Amino acid sequence: MTTLECLFCDQRRPFEIYDPFCPACGAPMLVAPTRSRKRIRRTAPTAAERFADFLPLKKYNPALSLGVGGTPLLRLGSVIDKFDLPEVLAKNETANPTASFKDRGTVVAIQKALELGVKKIGTISTGNMAGSTAAYAAKAGLPCLVFVKQDTPQDKILAAAVYGATIIKVQGDYGGLFRKSFEIGRARGIAFMNSVDPFRIEGYKVTSYEIFEQLGPAAFRAKAPVMIFIPVSAAGHLIGLLRGFLDLRGLGLIPRLPIIVGVQASGCAPISRAFRLGKVRVERFPNPHTIAHAISNPTPPGGELALRLLRESGGSMMDVSEDEIHRAHSLMAAKEGIFCDPASATPLAAVLKLKRRGQILTGAKSVLIITGSGLKAMEGLESARLDIRSAALEKLDQAL
Amino acid sequence: MTTLECLFCDQRRPFEIYDPFCPACGAPMLVAPTRSRKRIRRTAPTAAERFADFLPLKKYNPALSLGVGGTPLLRLGSVIDKFDLPEVLAKNETANPTASFKDRGTVVAIQKALELGVKKIGTISTGNMAGSTAAYAAKAGLPCLVFVKQDTPQDKILAAAVYGATIIKVQGDYGGLFRKSFEIGRARGIAFMNSVDPFRIEGYKVTSYEIFEQLGPAAFRAKAPVMIFIPVSAAGHLIGLLRGFLDLRGLGLIPRLPIIVGVQASGCAPISRAFRLGKVRVERFPNPHTIAHAISNPTPPGGELALRLLRESGGSMMDVSEDEIHRAHSLMAAKEGIFCDPASATPLAAVLKLKRRGQILTGAKSVLIITGSGLKAMEGLESARLDIRSAALEKLDQAL
Repeated sequence: MTTLECLFCDQRRPFEIYDPFCPACGAPMLVAPTRSRKRIRRTAPTAAERFADFLPLKKYNPALSLGVGGTPLLRLGSVIDKFDLPEVLAKNETANPTASFKDRGTVVAIQKALELGVKKIGTISTGNMAGSTAAYAAKAGLPCLVFVKQDTPQDKILAAAVYGATIIKVQGDYGGLFRKSFEIGRARGIAFMNSVDPFRIEGYKVTSYEIFEQLGPAAFRAKAPVMIFIPVSAAGHLIGLLRGFLDLRGLGLIPRLPIIVGVQASGCAPISRAFRLGKVRVERFPNPHTIAHAISNPTPPGGELALRLLRESGGSMMDVSEDEIHRAHSLMAAKEGIFCDPASATPLAAVLKLKRRGQILTGAKSVLIITGSGLKAMEGLESARLDIRSAALEKLDQAL
Repeated sequence: MTTLECLFCDQRRPFEIYDPFCPACGAPMLVAPTRSRKRIRRTAPTAAERFADFLPLKKYNPALSLGVGGTPLLRLGSVIDKFDLPEVLAKNETANPTASFKDRGTVVAIQKALELGVKKIGTISTGNMAGSTAAYAAKAGLPCLVFVKQDTPQDKILAAAVYGATIIKVQGDYGGLFRKSFEIGRARGIAFMNSVDPFRIEGYKVTSYEIFEQLGPAAFRAKAPVMIFIPVSAAGHLIGLLRGFLDLRGLGLIPRLPIIVGVQASGCAPISRAFRLGKVRVERFPNPHTIAHAISNPTPPGGELALRLLRESGGSMMDVSEDEIHRAHSLMAAKEGIFCDPASATPLAAVLKLKRRGQILTGAKSVLIITGSGLKAMEGLESARLDIRSAALEKLDQAL
C-alpha cells in the first residue's frame, strides 16, 4: 500500500483513490518515500524501466506506455551563437505520444489506477491533459471522463474525444471544477488524475533521470551549475522534476541539485509573484491574460508546495512578458526548428532575460523544458508576421 | 561524389543538385551502391549513426537531426484481441520532430545539401513535407521556399511558415508544379528536395534498420513472414523502406526480405490499380477523392519504380475504402491510444481487410507504418461520432 505525506503538516496516511489532499491543511499530498531497496536496471531499454524502483508501482508495464519518454535533448546552437550564451539545451517533451509532457505522468497514474482496480478514470483540463489521459485510458481499456473549460478550442476537445473519452464542456470557475471533480469521483467511482495527482507527479521524475543520463554525471559535478528552466502552471511538473533530482542526489549520482527555475507568463504569474514577495501563500492572480494558455492558471493547486521546495533547494521563479514570449517562440521555430506552444517558449524567454540582465553564470548549462507542441496551439501564431504568398503556376517566376 | 542510377535504363551519372531524374526515361534516379567498406557502429546512440555507412553522406551530423528517429514500435494488443489477429505492431513515426515520417528523409537530404554547398532549399507539399523541410532548413540555417497547393488547410501552412520559410500557395496542377519546381531550382540555385529525392529516399532506410533492431533477427528467420504495411502517396517512402531491408539482407542480417504491402485509398489508388492490372505504367487516377489527404496523389512520381521493386521483392499493393479508413482510424485512437491521420489508418484497414478475406498468414508479424499525426489532420475527424457534451458547473451531476 502506498503512503502519502503532507510536507506542510508531516501528516501521513495510506493513499485513498479519490482523495489526494491533506486532511489537515488541504495541500496536495505526495508519495512518501519507502524503505524498500532500490536499484537501477542499467540495461533496461527506457529510463522508466531503468528507474522503475523509484516509481510507486508494483511493476511498471511498458506495454501500456505508448512509447513515452526517450525524448531528445537538443543543443540550441544558433540561439547560443546569436546571443553569446553558455550551453543551452532543450528537452523536447513534444516528442511524447500525445505531444506533451503530460504523458510522463499519465503513464504512471493510469498504471496505479489499474493496480488499484479502478474501473473508470477522469481528468480536468485546458488541453494537453485531456488528450494524454484519454489516450492512455484507451490503451488501458478504461472509460475516461474529461471536464474542459467551456471556452477550450474545439480542436483540443476533438483531439481528446477521438480516443473515445466522454468530454464535458463546463461553464463555471475552473478552481471550483477542480474541487468538484474529486466529489464526483468519490460519488461515482471515477479516479480523477488531475494536475497535482501524486502518482502523476512521480511520473514526471523520469524526465529528470533522462536529463541526468543525457547530460552525463560530469555536468552535475562541474563548478558551474546545471539550470533547469520549466514552464509552471499547476506546478505538478516542477515538483516532479525536483523530486527526480532528489532521487538522483539520494543515490549519490549527483553531488548537488540543479538550480530549478520555474517560469510563468507575467500576465498570469501567481507563483512567481509570491516567490518575489517572499510569501508562503499563493493568492489568486487577478485578470489572467497571456498567449501562453497552457500555463494560464490563476489558482495553481501546487503553488505553495512549489514555493517551499524551490526555496529549500535553491531554485527560483521568474516571469516573462508577452513580447518576450512571442520573441522566444519565434526563435525556437525559426532558429532551432522546434515548433512549441507559447508556454514552452517561456524558458528561453527567461534565459534571454537573465542574459540581458547579466545574470547568466559563466559555464552554466541550461536545460529548457519544452512542454507542449505548437500543433496544439495554432491560435498562438501571429500569421501576419509569417511569409505566406499566393501565385498561379504560370506566374510563379514573377512571384519569387 | 555520389552516383545516381536509373533502375529502368541502367543509366548512371554523377549526382547534380537540381536534377534527380533519368535523362533517358525521366524516372526518379536512386543513389547507386558504392563499393566502400561498410560497418555497423553498434554502440552509437541512434540507428542513423549505427548505420551511417549506409547513408550517402560524408558524415552524418546528429547535431542537425532535431532528435529524429528512435520511434516506438507498439503492439496493438486490443486490436489483436478484438479481431483475433496474429502479431500486429505499429511503428509510430508521428513521434518524429515534426510529427511525420518525412523527417527521416529530410535529415539526410538537408545534410547532403550542406555538403554540396547549397545555399537555399525548397520543397513542394500538401502538408507534412512543408513542415519537415522548413524545420530542418531552420536548424541548418538555410532559407527555405515551400510551394503548397492553393487549397492546403491554413493550419498546415502556418505550421510550416512558423519556421521562417517562404510559403507560396500555387493555383494549378500539382504534377505540373512538381516539374516546375526543378526548373525554378535550376534557374535560381534552390535545391528542391521533393517526395522522390534520392537522398530523402535513403533517409527512409533508417526506419527499416530500426524495425529490424526492434523486432529482433529471430522475427526475420521465422517460418511465417514479417509483413510491412505502408501508406503510399508518391512512393518514395515505400522505396526507401524496401532499400533499407535490401541493405540488411546484403549484410546477411536477415535471410529474406519482409513482404512489403503498399496501401492506398480506393478513392485515389493509381499504383494499387496498376499493380492489380499487371501494368508497368501508372496512369493518372481520375477524380481523386479520399479523406486520406496525405496520400491523395493521382500522379505519383515514384509509382513505376515502386511497382517494379514490389514485384521483384514479393511485395504487393492494396487499397481500402473510405469506410474502412474511418473504421481503422477510430480503432487506432479508441482502442490503441494512437491519434494518427487518416492516411496512417490505411495499414490497419488493409490488415483487417485481409483478415476478413482469410488471407492473414498464421504466425505472421505485421508492422503498420504510422506516417503522420492526427493533430495535422483535424479536418478528418467526424465530430458527430464523438461524445462531447456541455453543462454548467452546478448542474454537472445531472449531465453525467
